Amino acid sequence: MGKAEAQGAQPPKYPYFEEETSVEVVNARMGPDVDPRLREVMTVLVKHLHAAIKEIEPTHEEWLQGITFLTEVGRMCSEWRQEFILLSDTLGVSMLVDAINHRRPNGATENTILGPFYVPEAPRYAHGTNICLDGKGEPLVVRGRVLDTEGRPVAGALIDVWQTNNDGFYDVQQKGLQPDWNLRGVFTTNENGEYWYRAVKPRYYPIPDDGPVGKMLAALGRHPNRAAHIHFVVSAPGYDPVITHIFTPDCQYLAEDAVFGVKDSLVADFKEITDPASAAELDFTSPYWAVNWDFVLARKPADVA
Amino acid sequence: MGKAEAQGAQPPKYPYFEEETSVEVVNARMGPDVDPRLREVMTVLVKHLHAAIKEIEPTHEEWLQGITFLTEVGRMCSEWRQEFILLSDTLGVSMLVDAINHRRPNGATENTILGPFYVPEAPRYAHGTNICLDGKGEPLVVRGRVLDTEGRPVAGALIDVWQTNNDGFYDVQQKGLQPDWNLRGVFTTNENGEYWYRAVKPRYYPIPDDGPVGKMLAALGRHPNRAAHIHFVVSAPGYDPVITHIFTPDCQYLAEDAVFGVKDSLVADFKEITDPASAAELDFTSPYWAVNWDFVLARKPADVA
Repeated sequence: MGKAEAQGAQPPKYPYFEEETSVEVVNARMGPDVDPRLREVMTVLVKHLHAAIKEIEPTHEEWLQGITFLTEVGRMCSEWRQEFILLSDTLGVSMLVDAINHRRPNGATENTILGPFYVPEAPRYAHGTNICLDGKGEPLVVRGRVLDTEGRPVAGALIDVWQTNNDGFYDVQQKGLQPDWNLRGVFTTNENGEYWYRAVKPRYYPIPDDGPVGKMLAALGRHPNRAAHIHFVVSAPGYDPVITHIFTPDCQYLAEDAVFGVKDSLVADFKEITDPASAAELDFTSPYWAVNWDFVLARKPADVA
Repeated sequence: MGKAEAQGAQPPKYPYFEEETSVEVVNARMGPDVDPRLREVMTVLVKHLHAAIKEIEPTHEEWLQGITFLTEVGRMCSEWRQEFILLSDTLGVSMLVDAINHRRPNGATENTILGPFYVPEAPRYAHGTNICLDGKGEPLVVRGRVLDTEGRPVAGALIDVWQTNNDGFYDVQQKGLQPDWNLRGVFTTNENGEYWYRAVKPRYYPIPDDGPVGKMLAALGRHPNRAAHIHFVVSAPGYDPVITHIFTPDCQYLAEDAVFGVKDSLVADFKEITDPASAAELDFTSPYWAVNWDFVLARKPADVA
């Protein structure tokens, strides 16, 4: 429109943004060539985001508190800290995504959340290795097998394991204070699908709560503790990998894990063993803890395997 | 629970997290002493967040893309850049909050969004001051009054004004490249409620699009341009402050402002004046632009005034 035309003319009545039509106005801005899945995701996000705002009716100050909270969550993120994953975890979003993606039971071990402390490329160890490098905690031996859904052993499966030390911290949370790769390692099943290794009994621990997510939990009257668990990623060629934990049955936070990660099927039977002879064989003192845990992997669909 | 009790016992069947009950399980974790408004806000947020996830059914990879996007938005924030406000603006959230908070017309000038470039404590100037310090652009004189809803002049009202320079950048986006406080200033109405000052005709400009929000707009087939406008915050003791813009009627982006900020009532009549004598009086060359704009303030409720 030229200046001459515009001068003195009434402004046209465009479909400007209004409360009643806000979702349609925003979503109508998308161009014709948007990736269909992105269009679907954004359409739904805008719809629910606006619905939440309309139900909450935030004041300008409350909106700014929300902006400030998200900004602080962003500021907390670093190479070794993923505060947005903590936010997703503590609001049940991570477990919801897990549940949606594992609706149809395939006979395999159930998934639970990955969490923010997985580190790829952990050392590969021989069976029996003690991955507890700081010598703290109650000794534990973990033994078991990887099976397919017909109960046949899966040889050559990788079992990637990680857990906190006895003070409740992962190695990457205490760089320089813990030995590198403390309580992490990758084991490979033998021809009978078997694995075993030594570690320590896991303890409950708080998720990192010195940031905005910790402040949020405190404001909500929620504790930050995760039920005691060991993390596993189990994979083998031709099988769907399983991202999971096992939980101790005696943890006081089993019913109120801060990130909602507990499932009945993942609570294991940790046994306290009082037997000096077997302890000595393991280079442990007596008593020690033992847990047997078999993982079950489902075959990938034939066209993928 | 002691170790002895736990050993060998069946794990109790707790109400663990499940897809069907996810909202109730998460919200039930809030403690008894949570601030009632925070409880209300979080309950609604969790409900709509989970509803969106259930409708989208993201894969684990899509969830991670979402986490990565939010992390990049956080990384982009700095003293002079508020990427979360840009995100709120471009998704229509900022305008929705504005609309919700100004549902009942009170006879005052309509609000629109503050935007991320307001800077408090701008210099106070005498009437007529030219706030364009870099000499670029088409000269503009802005004249008008501040009135109450009965049409009576409001003396001593503050008019806090800011706009981009002719290259489309606010001073704070180009620290060191533009003079400090370029195209910002605070004016005070006289006893007749009048104000006037000199500046340049505003131009459309892109919101900062070199970050994740710009990438999002590109993926959505949306341009990043804001319709040409001047920002104002107008305030006076005893009156509700007004945060608003005025828009030029001839901007090609008037109907598709990137942040949905345009309202019919805020489109002003910018006139091109070809009159060497009045231009000379203003220390302008001819032609120049002129706009008359009156702001209307509503009294605060009596108990607050």
